[in-house]
Amino acid sequence: MDDQFYMRKAIEVALEARKNGNQPFGAILVKQDKIVMTGENKINNDNDPTYHAEIGLISKYCFENKISDLTEYTLYSSCEPCVMCSGAMVWSSVGRLVYSVSYEQFAKISGSNIMISCNEVFEKSPNQPKVVANIINEEGLKVFEGFKF
Amino acid sequence: MDDQFYMRKAIEVALEARKNGNQPFGAILVKQDKIVMTGENKINNDNDPTYHAEIGLISKYCFENKISDLTEYTLYSSCEPCVMCSGAMVWSSVGRLVYSVSYEQFAKISGSNIMISCNEVFEKSPNQPKVVANIINEEGLKVFEGFKF
Repeated sequence: MDDQFYMRKAIEVALEARKNGNQPFGAILVKQDKIVMTGENKINNDNDPTYHAEIGLISKYCFENKISDLTEYTLYSSCEPCVMCSGAMVWSSVGRLVYSVSYEQFAKISGSNIMISCNEVFEKSPNQPKVVANIINEEGLKVFEGFKF
Repeated sequence: MDDQFYMRKAIEVALEARKNGNQPFGAILVKQDKIVMTGENKINNDNDPTYHAEIGLISKYCFENKISDLTEYTLYSSCEPCVMCSGAMVWSSVGRLVYSVSYEQFAKISGSNIMISCNEVFEKSPNQPKVVANIINEEGLKVFEGFKF
């Protein structure tokens, strides 16, 4: 299994989030070639504007498994994590991040964003996940087609 | 009631967090001169490295009250919110932030931090809380005395 395989799974999760009435973002957490958890954006279902796919997944996984160091894990996200979710990755020491759509691409699609990249957050942080950007980018962009922000 | 009054409350909450075995951070949410919720850091109690005082409070308040726009609220935090919590404030449209200890002061105390100010996050965001900094700063700094990070 490679990054493209897991990113397709993260994109499937983003499409599920959209079906469930939330914003179309998905993330999955992988350790040693095994998906250990998936996470959908749930801002509407949970009435919680902070319930992004990435931080929701990290919070739930750490809480349920009594693990607070994700150094050995890769987080796959259909879109580049915002500063909130990038911060969550730093505090949980995620080892590696793979994303499809960049924060700048997303800002153009939605009309606004917090204009700070995940790399900027990581560079200024005590924990710095390795980053692989823009994996299967066209498939990632398709998730947003026709979606109204 | 003024900012100093509410900040003393936030500092009391930070000391409670410390007593409860977590990191010494506290926040309170105020609307129209009324404290509507308090939030402690719970990273150890909940085994969740993302459970900072500010984002925990915002998430819980929005979820429990079915409110996702905090424009009319002021968040008081014993320490300047990190990028994760600043991002949470943007996504929930918090109207006003008052903090005591700055992120740079905290970085010196703890030895590390994500070196991006809340103002930088807000300036690059679609929602920009008004910020009042360094309120009763000496009292805020005392919270950390003797604490081992």
